[in-house]
Amino acid sequence: MLRSKVLSLLPRALSISSSSRQMSTATKLTIVEVNDKTGIATLSLNRPPINGLNLQLLQDLQQSIKEIESNKSTGLILTSANSKVFSAGIDIHEMYKPDKERVRLLWTTLQDIWVALYGSKVPTAAAINGHAPAGGCLLATSLEYRVMLPNFRIGLNETQLGMTVPIFCIFNYLNVLPRRLAERALNQGHMFTTEEAVQLGMVDDVAQSKEEALEKCAQFIGSFAKVNPVARSLTKLQFRAADLQRFEKERQKDLDIFMTFINDPQMQEQLGVYLQNLSKKAAN
Amino acid sequence: MLRSKVLSLLPRALSISSSSRQMSTATKLTIVEVNDKTGIATLSLNRPPINGLNLQLLQDLQQSIKEIESNKSTGLILTSANSKVFSAGIDIHEMYKPDKERVRLLWTTLQDIWVALYGSKVPTAAAINGHAPAGGCLLATSLEYRVMLPNFRIGLNETQLGMTVPIFCIFNYLNVLPRRLAERALNQGHMFTTEEAVQLGMVDDVAQSKEEALEKCAQFIGSFAKVNPVARSLTKLQFRAADLQRFEKERQKDLDIFMTFINDPQMQEQLGVYLQNLSKKAAN
Amino acid sequence: MLRSKVLSLLPRALSISSSSRQMSTATKLTIVEVNDKTGIATLSLNRPPINGLNLQLLQDLQQSIKEIESNKSTGLILTSANSKVFSAGIDIHEMYKPDKERVRLLWTTLQDIWVALYGSKVPTAAAINGHAPAGGCLLATSLEYRVMLPNFRIGLNETQLGMTVPIFCIFNYLNVLPRRLAERALNQGHMFTTEEAVQLGMVDDVAQSKEEALEKCAQFIGSFAKVNPVARSLTKLQFRAADLQRFEKERQKDLDIFMTFINDPQMQEQLGVYLQNLSKKAAN
Repeated sequence: MLRSKVLSLLPRALSISSSSRQMSTATKLTIVEVNDKTGIATLSLNRPPINGLNLQLLQDLQQSIKEIESNKSTGLILTSANSKVFSAGIDIHEMYKPDKERVRLLWTTLQDIWVALYGSKVPTAAAINGHAPAGGCLLATSLEYRVMLPNFRIGLNETQLGMTVPIFCIFNYLNVLPRRLAERALNQGHMFTTEEAVQLGMVDDVAQSKEEALEKCAQFIGSFAKVNPVARSLTKLQFRAADLQRFEKERQKDLDIFMTFINDPQMQEQLGVYLQNLSKKAAN
Repeated sequence: MLRSKVLSLLPRALSISSSSRQMSTATKLTIVEVNDKTGIATLSLNRPPINGLNLQLLQDLQQSIKEIESNKSTGLILTSANSKVFSAGIDIHEMYKPDKERVRLLWTTLQDIWVALYGSKVPTAAAINGHAPAGGCLLATSLEYRVMLPNFRIGLNETQLGMTVPIFCIFNYLNVLPRRLAERALNQGHMFTTEEAVQLGMVDDVAQSKEEALEKCAQFIGSFAKVNPVARSLTKLQFRAADLQRFEKERQKDLDIFMTFINDPQMQEQLGVYLQNLSKKAAN
Repeated sequence: MLRSKVLSLLPRALSISSSSRQMSTATKLTIVEVNDKTGIATLSLNRPPINGLNLQLLQDLQQSIKEIESNKSTGLILTSANSKVFSAGIDIHEMYKPDKERVRLLWTTLQDIWVALYGSKVPTAAAINGHAPAGGCLLATSLEYRVMLPNFRIGLNETQLGMTVPIFCIFNYLNVLPRRLAERALNQGHMFTTEEAVQLGMVDDVAQSKEEALEKCAQFIGSFAKVNPVARSLTKLQFRAADLQRFEKERQKDLDIFMTFINDPQMQEQLGVYLQNLSKKAAN
């Protein structure tokens, strides 16, 4: 368990503008800003260029979610500090010839983040201002509402990468897509265009800029202003309880599947080739 | 348990017209009329002006459902004897400074009614001839088919009232709405217009008058004329079995949640203010 | 258990054309052809005129599915060798005055076929080139993709025949239809036209000929060409695991329901009348 008792003792940073206060330290890979008027916390993934989910980013993300849950934020908007990629998913470097304990911690942290986001007490929304494959899509679909910028793609493309789709990702898809389409898209590793995603309901709205996306997310969260927050949060949990309970039962099995995948020699070879190609591209 | 062995011994009242017979006594808050030609039972909520669900109305409703199930009715249509409200849900007076045993009985009766309607052997339909918030929506969405008059609203708006949505209400919504919209509507306590409800499939058809609504419900029930009634009823139960089983497991927890809500001092204060405003309005 | 160890030892028949090899013996009621280029196996039901599912056809079907799973086929297309009926479902002759052990074996074989098709490792599709009532619809909706020729009908019409819809059929419908429509169609025993089925998503595409239907199915299976087959198959199983697990729990109960239905004297009388009418028609 990564839960830190120290966390709640950390002093909040001072406001950085009249309408928002930044709570994160400079060394973190996430930025949290809370709007003083609306009480909405914007959580930005900030690991350029593609917000690859390495252990540190995941741990910072987990901590930021806890901060937002424990302060009086009225809602959470997840977005990217980078302009072309919301998040490219798990950093391949973490998966190539990994230290067993570290990669195990990586996965359990990702599991914990899913539990925290999927079962979050506050209204949650994603301003998807870039591509969101694999883990990027996982984060966005754990939330209640999605606004996306045009000309990007989103999808759980695990099978394209040779990876079994984790059970919590299946829960996410069943929450946002008709069952028939969810299964097919997962089996194909389909990446939806913004337009497709909106048409199918997987994404709720399009925005032409990040600002507009954030504004629409804020409007969604504002739609709960007249609702009793305790009743709302218990209703949401009631709605998602069966999924959360089933995940707790299958948590170990889910970890085992990932560890088997990681330990597969053929998969390691493929990851090696992939990383070599990446560095060749970078060199050109 | 409220099941009365006496019930089945009660003599049926004589027919009140050539094509229907009324079975209820005058003191009841529900009216049951069975069409002699079609065998369809129309069950009218009759507690003017808004069919507030107090203990007596719920007990009468429960008894009427049992009558219909045990006689040879071919279907059940639920409607309101009043013209503007189908049912406004639980009578607030039952929840304000309640007698513990009485309010506990109120809730368990409501639970039993859900089980009876959701698992009813006969085809069921609602002619929604007025607003159907909260408990009114619960009754209508427990059935298989809904026809609604224009310019009314329907929805489980519990969170607007500070109340957690009971689990059986969630089952109802998942039966009539896509999962994504069901969750959002429950969290927001959204009240759908007739038009919205029809567009989303939550309500199946619109009718311009109560008579037309009843006729359309009768047509729906008539669509099963060529179907073996035992096979139909077992298929329906098979389809709804998982929900009914999960409810039985969570029945006590569901009661506990309601009792906690009722015992909350802040909630009692709000209910007091609400009732005061109501009587002021009435005085003007 | 019908699993035969001998099966894997059977030699494959020689190719019957440059691009396909036929693996079945002439006495079988199914034909399996594997396309040498694509690796796709086409499994044809071949019991004229209506592919009535008698014990032999079911056992041959079960064996053919196993062959396809155990050889290196890249996908399975199920179709009919006859031109007007995909499959009319269980052969009524098997259900009229049956030998208890034989009819029990018939049903458990049908159960095993559902498990094999629903949980098949390879991509699966149906080229529905004729009517598909009852068991015919069951087979088609166990698969991942459906293409249908116009002017035919498909549906689980068990309740019209006085039979409770088996739980695995309910799982199939929930996979291809919105829940509200699934329940209603099952209760009504509704037979969908090709057009209705396509509009609702129960069938994915229309084709004007059997060849076009097979081609579209092949294209669907081809859409997984770039996907890791192990990851795909585990993802599909993960997606369908809850249904498969629940079925295993209820397998005996499902058999009991069928045996009760079969042993019902009234039902036997109806089946007798039905078969008499059939032979009268045949005589005219």
